[in-house]
Amino acid sequence: MIQRYSRPALRELWSDAQRFATWLEVELAVCVAMEEEPASPVPPGTAAKIRTAAAGRIDADRILEIEQRTRHDVIAFLTHVEELAGADARWLHLGMTSSDVLDTSLAILLVRASDEIAGSLEKLRAALERRAQEHRATPLIGRSHGVHAEPTTLGAVFAGLHAEIVRNQVRWARTRCEIAVGKIAGAVGTYAHLSPALETRALARLGLGPETVATQIVARDRHAVFFNALALIAGSIERIALQVRHWQRTEVGEAEEPFGKGQKGSSAMPHKKNPILSENLTGLARLVRSYAAASLENIALWHERDISHSSVERVIAPDATALVDFMADRAAGLIDGLLVHPERMRQNLELTRGLVFSEGLMLALVKTGLERQRAYEIVQRNALAAREGGPSFAERIEQDAEVTTRLRIEEVRACFDLEHQLRHVGAIVDRGLRR
Amino acid sequence: MIQRYSRPALRELWSDAQRFATWLEVELAVCVAMEEEPASPVPPGTAAKIRTAAAGRIDADRILEIEQRTRHDVIAFLTHVEELAGADARWLHLGMTSSDVLDTSLAILLVRASDEIAGSLEKLRAALERRAQEHRATPLIGRSHGVHAEPTTLGAVFAGLHAEIVRNQVRWARTRCEIAVGKIAGAVGTYAHLSPALETRALARLGLGPETVATQIVARDRHAVFFNALALIAGSIERIALQVRHWQRTEVGEAEEPFGKGQKGSSAMPHKKNPILSENLTGLARLVRSYAAASLENIALWHERDISHSSVERVIAPDATALVDFMADRAAGLIDGLLVHPERMRQNLELTRGLVFSEGLMLALVKTGLERQRAYEIVQRNALAAREGGPSFAERIEQDAEVTTRLRIEEVRACFDLEHQLRHVGAIVDRGLRR
Amino acid sequence: MIQRYSRPALRELWSDAQRFATWLEVELAVCVAMEEEPASPVPPGTAAKIRTAAAGRIDADRILEIEQRTRHDVIAFLTHVEELAGADARWLHLGMTSSDVLDTSLAILLVRASDEIAGSLEKLRAALERRAQEHRATPLIGRSHGVHAEPTTLGAVFAGLHAEIVRNQVRWARTRCEIAVGKIAGAVGTYAHLSPALETRALARLGLGPETVATQIVARDRHAVFFNALALIAGSIERIALQVRHWQRTEVGEAEEPFGKGQKGSSAMPHKKNPILSENLTGLARLVRSYAAASLENIALWHERDISHSSVERVIAPDATALVDFMADRAAGLIDGLLVHPERMRQNLELTRGLVFSEGLMLALVKTGLERQRAYEIVQRNALAAREGGPSFAERIEQDAEVTTRLRIEEVRACFDLEHQLRHVGAIVDRGLRR
Amino acid sequence: MIQRYSRPALRELWSDAQRFATWLEVELAVCVAMEEEPASPVPPGTAAKIRTAAAGRIDADRILEIEQRTRHDVIAFLTHVEELAGADARWLHLGMTSSDVLDTSLAILLVRASDEIAGSLEKLRAALERRAQEHRATPLIGRSHGVHAEPTTLGAVFAGLHAEIVRNQVRWARTRCEIAVGKIAGAVGTYAHLSPALETRALARLGLGPETVATQIVARDRHAVFFNALALIAGSIERIALQVRHWQRTEVGEAEEPFGKGQKGSSAMPHKKNPILSENLTGLARLVRSYAAASLENIALWHERDISHSSVERVIAPDATALVDFMADRAAGLIDGLLVHPERMRQNLELTRGLVFSEGLMLALVKTGLERQRAYEIVQRNALAAREGGPSFAERIEQDAEVTTRLRIEEVRACFDLEHQLRHVGAIVDRGLRR
Repeated sequence: MIQRYSRPALRELWSDAQRFATWLEVELAVCVAMEEEPASPVPPGTAAKIRTAAAGRIDADRILEIEQRTRHDVIAFLTHVEELAGADARWLHLGMTSSDVLDTSLAILLVRASDEIAGSLEKLRAALERRAQEHRATPLIGRSHGVHAEPTTLGAVFAGLHAEIVRNQVRWARTRCEIAVGKIAGAVGTYAHLSPALETRALARLGLGPETVATQIVARDRHAVFFNALALIAGSIERIALQVRHWQRTEVGEAEEPFGKGQKGSSAMPHKKNPILSENLTGLARLVRSYAAASLENIALWHERDISHSSVERVIAPDATALVDFMADRAAGLIDGLLVHPERMRQNLELTRGLVFSEGLMLALVKTGLERQRAYEIVQRNALAAREGGPSFAERIEQDAEVTTRLRIEEVRACFDLEHQLRHVGAIVDRGLRR
Repeated sequence: MIQRYSRPALRELWSDAQRFATWLEVELAVCVAMEEEPASPVPPGTAAKIRTAAAGRIDADRILEIEQRTRHDVIAFLTHVEELAGADARWLHLGMTSSDVLDTSLAILLVRASDEIAGSLEKLRAALERRAQEHRATPLIGRSHGVHAEPTTLGAVFAGLHAEIVRNQVRWARTRCEIAVGKIAGAVGTYAHLSPALETRALARLGLGPETVATQIVARDRHAVFFNALALIAGSIERIALQVRHWQRTEVGEAEEPFGKGQKGSSAMPHKKNPILSENLTGLARLVRSYAAASLENIALWHERDISHSSVERVIAPDATALVDFMADRAAGLIDGLLVHPERMRQNLELTRGLVFSEGLMLALVKTGLERQRAYEIVQRNALAAREGGPSFAERIEQDAEVTTRLRIEEVRACFDLEHQLRHVGAIVDRGLRR
Repeated sequence: MIQRYSRPALRELWSDAQRFATWLEVELAVCVAMEEEPASPVPPGTAAKIRTAAAGRIDADRILEIEQRTRHDVIAFLTHVEELAGADARWLHLGMTSSDVLDTSLAILLVRASDEIAGSLEKLRAALERRAQEHRATPLIGRSHGVHAEPTTLGAVFAGLHAEIVRNQVRWARTRCEIAVGKIAGAVGTYAHLSPALETRALARLGLGPETVATQIVARDRHAVFFNALALIAGSIERIALQVRHWQRTEVGEAEEPFGKGQKGSSAMPHKKNPILSENLTGLARLVRSYAAASLENIALWHERDISHSSVERVIAPDATALVDFMADRAAGLIDGLLVHPERMRQNLELTRGLVFSEGLMLALVKTGLERQRAYEIVQRNALAAREGGPSFAERIEQDAEVTTRLRIEEVRACFDLEHQLRHVGAIVDRGLRR
Repeated sequence: MIQRYSRPALRELWSDAQRFATWLEVELAVCVAMEEEPASPVPPGTAAKIRTAAAGRIDADRILEIEQRTRHDVIAFLTHVEELAGADARWLHLGMTSSDVLDTSLAILLVRASDEIAGSLEKLRAALERRAQEHRATPLIGRSHGVHAEPTTLGAVFAGLHAEIVRNQVRWARTRCEIAVGKIAGAVGTYAHLSPALETRALARLGLGPETVATQIVARDRHAVFFNALALIAGSIERIALQVRHWQRTEVGEAEEPFGKGQKGSSAMPHKKNPILSENLTGLARLVRSYAAASLENIALWHERDISHSSVERVIAPDATALVDFMADRAAGLIDGLLVHPERMRQNLELTRGLVFSEGLMLALVKTGLERQRAYEIVQRNALAAREGGPSFAERIEQDAEVTTRLRIEEVRACFDLEHQLRHVGAIVDRGLRR
């Protein structure tokens, strides 16, 4: 868990205290379910008594101390609960295996983390929506390969990012279902000393469904889905961050990260304002991707389970969820506070003095009956010459006999009409903001 | 595309011929949609004429030859179509950018590949179902950490693998929707010389929906979802393969891969029969995982697109789909033909002379009122001693005063009842086979 | 930094306190180098005075507090030093950029971590050497594909693992050189307000060499080499762990992990002894692999640097080094304490009743002038029959007319001579233990 | 093997024909070594006779046909050689296992691929050297975070990339040694029917050394080293490519890829010239990285080997070597032909009207006795104001009383002296070009 890159809610969620509290939650849910069984050996009220006895007294350090001896964390935990609750504790864990507790608890924690992330994603989505509406008609040069292509609007860019976040929200809601699955099925998933009915009741109390066919554990394809969905979200946020980093380049200057009062960009160069939040998001995406790769190796375990997945998950469950939650939250703030420079966007749009309208001209020529290849060559010739300096592309075109014999001057000028080029952008923005 | 690890259908799908045919399909679909526009400059019947002119005459080598000069594949293609169809070809690609063709074609090919894979997955699912029914009651020792745990049945194992494949089928159906999306929206997705309505009609003809907000291309989070879903399927097949490899170990010997007449296991050792199909699947899963990692780096492109994703996809789109299709198909055959040795399973189950029933005994002691820790110690003491040889675990238990003062001999023996332990397995198998 | 999977030395190394202490070390080394310059503006003794003023008073929390405002960690640090040392602090960081401090400090810490890891690796190597000598002649069946192949010895296995660790030691020593490189070259590596000579002197004091051509930072291919070397070591340790896991399978039982007094294998099944240390190493290798992948994405930064590598390194520098150090240390203990069962090895060797000698027999037949294909078929026929039960392979061979017409009974029996087969193993072990 | 992204030499190297030819080379080298043994059963001249019989007649299709039946590639190959060479062929493969042939052949092919790559790398290095010399004094604004920092020269940038390629050359030479290792040691590496001396002689003939302790195969940490070294080279080339992509941005325009006569940048926009070669290199780096990840999973195989590594290597050995060779070759051409625009570099350098000299001014103020924090604030205040427009940074500074009370006007102006800032760059370039 990385303090610097996590919100307090996530740090709390993955604390030792929270983990042991969740284990107890699971043990007690099963205990209650057992009490309800007909002819149960477990006396009614047992779970309630243990809950009272343990309330606020679970001592993480004591558990770790016991674990030194038993080298088994769940047994250490149960031993500690027995210290607190006495003889009643014998009714805990009856017929259960450690993974019944661990995997069910992991599901609970992942679901909670999932909900936190959903909240941060929603903030990001809302920020993108607001900025898309605000700039729906702010002209911006569209770029492919980093090179000016044709005009678009800033609103369309935000709307595109918005649509991608919405796709991630839909995927994320599904991922929650994949992971909201526990397991109270015993050592190899056969309910040798339990029953499917009891499992269903205990898990329902915890907000979870049962694994279809458990081994000793819940199947790890579910977790791989989860961590890969995180990597996808991280990739989409990286796309947003990359956008900002490009805008803030000195030569581009179309938008920049908010820069705090008292903030310093560089220890050496007092003039610097750097897109460090975005660069940071870029790096974090690499980390989350790497965690996803590790999770894929956890699917194929030996027989009814080996425990190799465990050390991986101890690291990546907290780290990957905390990072993505942090990323979404930070990206929301970044988009919200982004300083936009429409006038610079306009300047850049005009930088190539009309080159970016070359396609319309070529099409106008084709519509006069010219072959596409020939039309292309005429326009490319003028465009590449204009890039080198001298008369602008528009000026050259208006002088080119091959053009003027085919198109009237008004027809030529219509090709350079920005309004016309952007006539569909409003509809695009609306579509991108639909949920 | 790896000849050795692909079915002919997939090799054909990703051939140059198929690619160019699909490009033409896309260009013509747009051309038809344009013909239908009111006051369209494109004469009715244009697409039909081009189709006729090009039918069976698209020459991949000629296109590559032209590309040497233009260094642009789509332009080379269009030039070639112009060679074949003459002046009519001018009406192709009107207002379109290369990516309108490329990304829409890629979607068509990925959807087709997706359907092939779905077919192979279904074969695998059916094989697992059949074997699960066949062996629903065949006892097998469950193993955690590679060490005997408690009994289960072979049917339960197959049912668990079946449930995982079904989960993958559900995910795969969704993934198809993510990828069944094209784009006829021009250079930066603004429909500068096109319209959303035209795009919708053209794509519908191709079985695709439109990208919500395109840039120059369809957003790459969709493709990352696709390749990651493939990695998940590969991981689940790897789990199946790993299972078989363990069963076929000399000391285990519970099942083995079909061994063909005339087959040779080793050039040096005539006695060998090796689980090479399964090992092969294990290796292929590594490859598919690696492709997924590359796809995640393709999401964050520059502005309205850079083309860095292209080389990656040229490799992984054919390779990853062909491999997973091959894997599912091979795994289906493997499961179908798997030689199962129930008698060896029974022998192994009895190998520890009753140790695997230790949990039931501990629980029986707890139910007499003994503390869990104490009960554990009594049973562990006898179990660890029995592992070293001498009297079996059952024999030792029946002699242990701490046990016999608490449990009657029939109660002790009931703990060693295999039937009882497996009483829920039928229900588990049924649940695992539900779809 | 994962408490559970790290030794105290590494946790201490990557603490906030250590980080800030190292930053100060770097600033002071440069300050001293400046004092030594002819006509330096920096008064002699400045560094010494600052060192005295700051000794034991660097307050990590205070620095983080200042960073809240400046959003720049090095400036926050310098501000704090100024709080402690007053006006003298103005002479720190003169002409330097933050990365001069950060990258040079990182190099120092990575070198120290590297030395810790080298120590743990040496423990592992020594353990493997000891066990290889101990068991140089202990017969063990060699297995390919998990299936019995031909005999080898346990010593040869350990010697092979030893040779691999030695290879890693050689690589690791080289990796140390790659990373023992700092940089005091200013904002874009041009020494605009510094000089190459000053850098060389300052870095020499810190045990580092200068980057050949720095940008704002040390080039990140060096760090990628470092993290990939860690992934390699992790992979080699995983190979050791996998070996142990297979040996400890119930059906194999040839060796097992040390099992502590009071240790419990399972919360449900008192009879269990599981290879959890080895499984844990397997999982950790996945993590280290994933960190290496992230580090490769850090090489290509924008122009003279972007800061996207930083968040990645904040996580993986501590985590990857601590994990590999822990892995090597744990593996050393595991090999050292491994319980070996030579008698079980012998039993397993004889499990196939002679099948594993099939190659020698085939070769003997070839040497009588028989075609290889024919010899193979004769031996395979008998071997596959023997696998099904009935007479052993040796018995069948001695009855097979196609054999007995070509080989005398003594010649046949010589093929089953274990001593002969193992005649080169001593030499192999010696070669594997050479350094 | 990807036709589009490979040079003919590499495609030829990894052809079926070349593979089988190499297998024969290995078999014959061992056969010769056997002939030389005292009292060898193998008649002198056997290898020579087989070589003559097989010369130019190895039929890859026939081998694949036989493999259909045997499901074993080496046996199929040997059967085919027997078809060609008759009874002499019985002396081939004596005491060998398939992996003796396969792994030794793989080493030969990887070494050859390695030499091709070394050649392409050297071309790249030479191109960087030439351009570094050419532009050693061409001023260029250094950028961190994409934002103008301080001046450097284009030559320094090339020299830095050169130094990184030289580091890769050194690593690559070492990697060749890691991989130039074969193995003629039999089924489990014990030389049961061979000898270490024979292996050494046979391998020497092939230009290889023997694996220290082989299992059935050469240890896979060696191959992981190889593929990770490729990923590193790919990462370093990606850095070069990224540099070019940034230079070619419309707003930056400092350098651009060569653009062929007849080349077309976009099917839609005739004005486009895009850095597609560099973007392509960026994508290919992702692929090579992914192959490296897969290779790391190949290290930990079961016991004396499982064959899961094989399918991975069948794909990544040709693909990764061919891609990196292609990348280095393409990058060499790219650097060689790069169009550089020094005048645009100068314009960009002046874009911020002096801001990039802020550090020198701050340092000059510090040297007058001002506190660093205070000096920073004065300079930052003027710099941030100048960014907003109005008087330039230099003009503002010359008017700032807090500055002018401390520095004379000449002292202020000296801070804006480009020559002075670049005084060390010549030495940097020389250092970067040293080998």
